[in-house]
Amino acid sequence: MVSSMYLMRLPTAARRLLGASAARARYLSILTSPPARAVLYDHHGSPEQVVRVADVATVEIGDRDVCVRMLAAPINPSDLNRIEGVYPVRPPLPGAVAGYEGLGQVHALGPAVDSLSVGDWVIPSPPSFGTWQTYIVKPATAWHRVRADVPPYYPATITINPLTALRMLRDFVNLTPGDSLVQNGATSIVGQCVIQLAKLHGLHTINIIRDRPGSEEAKDKLKQLGADQVFTESQIDIKNIKTLLGALPEPTLGLNCVGGNVASVILKILRQGGTMVTYGGMSKKPVTVSTSSFIFKDLSLKGFWLQKWMSSDKAEESRKMIDYLLDLVRKGELKYEMELTPFSDFRLALDKALGKHGSQPKQVLMF
Amino acid sequence: MVSSMYLMRLPTAARRLLGASAARARYLSILTSPPARAVLYDHHGSPEQVVRVADVATVEIGDRDVCVRMLAAPINPSDLNRIEGVYPVRPPLPGAVAGYEGLGQVHALGPAVDSLSVGDWVIPSPPSFGTWQTYIVKPATAWHRVRADVPPYYPATITINPLTALRMLRDFVNLTPGDSLVQNGATSIVGQCVIQLAKLHGLHTINIIRDRPGSEEAKDKLKQLGADQVFTESQIDIKNIKTLLGALPEPTLGLNCVGGNVASVILKILRQGGTMVTYGGMSKKPVTVSTSSFIFKDLSLKGFWLQKWMSSDKAEESRKMIDYLLDLVRKGELKYEMELTPFSDFRLALDKALGKHGSQPKQVLMF
Repeated sequence: MVSSMYLMRLPTAARRLLGASAARARYLSILTSPPARAVLYDHHGSPEQVVRVADVATVEIGDRDVCVRMLAAPINPSDLNRIEGVYPVRPPLPGAVAGYEGLGQVHALGPAVDSLSVGDWVIPSPPSFGTWQTYIVKPATAWHRVRADVPPYYPATITINPLTALRMLRDFVNLTPGDSLVQNGATSIVGQCVIQLAKLHGLHTINIIRDRPGSEEAKDKLKQLGADQVFTESQIDIKNIKTLLGALPEPTLGLNCVGGNVASVILKILRQGGTMVTYGGMSKKPVTVSTSSFIFKDLSLKGFWLQKWMSSDKAEESRKMIDYLLDLVRKGELKYEMELTPFSDFRLALDKALGKHGSQPKQVLMF
Repeated sequence: MVSSMYLMRLPTAARRLLGASAARARYLSILTSPPARAVLYDHHGSPEQVVRVADVATVEIGDRDVCVRMLAAPINPSDLNRIEGVYPVRPPLPGAVAGYEGLGQVHALGPAVDSLSVGDWVIPSPPSFGTWQTYIVKPATAWHRVRADVPPYYPATITINPLTALRMLRDFVNLTPGDSLVQNGATSIVGQCVIQLAKLHGLHTINIIRDRPGSEEAKDKLKQLGADQVFTESQIDIKNIKTLLGALPEPTLGLNCVGGNVASVILKILRQGGTMVTYGGMSKKPVTVSTSSFIFKDLSLKGFWLQKWMSSDKAEESRKMIDYLLDLVRKGELKYEMELTPFSDFRLALDKALGKHGSQPKQVLMF
């Protein structure tokens, strides 16, 4: 008699030979996900207070479902905002599993799935709820197969941040080689990706980072990634933008993930007719703009939210772009800092992501 | 012997018959503008302190020039800003003549001008420096003939404010009948024009005005112009926008000429994905925007400056639109409040325009 795992690996045609009713009976009893552990929360609040790591019930694997053993998942700011209840799209409570992107390996397939095979590396694409758990069951269409020959665990983090960087370079201003752009929060993964993707397209970047211990090291790292100019906030002399820019042209695009004063700095550095795109608000402060910036400087201010972009019929296009980005990773042309932390140290990773240990690289849970 | 005025009325062909050299000699001595009085300033500062009404020297009327006797010119906020030196495009000092739009009547023509006749009503189009004077000489191409059969003196004010209203309704959001828009500063000429032009196109307007004595009357006036909803700033209950809007759809376009809190109110009332266009900053306060308004509400913020729009090769198009707007005026479909003040009472008109007599209609100087 074949084992259940072996049965699941059989191609669809072979499974059909077993006879529909026998197979159905067998699947009804066999095709469930393994016992899993997950980061759960039942109500919104401060993440360290409301989340718990707990066993979750096994889940039936439907005909068109795929059960994935998760390998890695990042802790993104938006994951924390979902737990806090301040993000507009959130999983239902109680019993919500945290996390929104990640990388896994196909563990078991529903009988009607022939687009994937056991062992494939997959990511939820578009990202979707519940990646902070050891096993997940989702329909096959929710998963996108990625190549495994990339440094660990880039596919786990390739969507939310690098794809945001790529779209923002493409969707707002018609940039041509030689143009420049300015961004704050440049040490973030989005910031690091912007620098590298811009450089690949012949664009120059002016980067603003926070004043903090280690900012000189951070500058060097960004310059190694290809940043043309890196300034801490205190080094920006608004009255002397020309000197600041050196030989670089005034930027036509500004990217803001901070808000507050350092968003205003971007508005000052932008050229006449420039566009600032806000995609984050790390300072929790608003953007303040003089009316003359709109009228006489003709600035445009817009926002970017990957989740909205993806929801508008862009699933296929986004998968192509993810493949493109992972190809750059494979060629060594796109890299960014991550810290891999075992799931057993989840609390430590969470604290680091919450900023309790000072500035830290992106935390990625390994399951 | 023909009088110089008569000579000037002769068609070009007839003038040629007089013989080139004789005519040239005659024009050299004859064709100058009459003595004129103008509102002048030699340095920037508070308008009531730096401007003076004085005689100005006569000006030679070149072959292709037209001398216009001014009939009327408004005092627009941008005129005051130019005198203050805070407007980006200003006439050179010293001896700058104030004013930027107005209506005049052709007084004398250079011999090579056959596009206009003495007695024609003309406006500088695009608007240009120095309309606050009794006679102006500008090249014929600077003047646009308008029909005289409109209520006095709409052509004097038709460009800067009504054209701004028209362009803002057309250039930013694709509005279709049934849509709505929201604006602050609704009692301004731009505001009044927005209400009427919107109504002509089947669009609904939500209008915000200042809390001040007489605001109930101001509301009634705007409703008579076609405003769907008019609120004073204090009547806006941000938490209850739905009730506020009644049966109107959430607006896709917001027009801001104030800044500060009442710009934020517009951002709250706008629908998801809406656009706010800033074209003035009467409160002298900046626009403050939460980062989530950009990211999750997908708002776009832009600016409009008619002077820039006109400078980009739009002279012909803008003249057509001016004719369209004056046609609406003629049909009684576009009207707005103006107060006509004799030039001899310039100081009073200036004080009113500066807000020293409380809220006043647009001041228009009659020469």
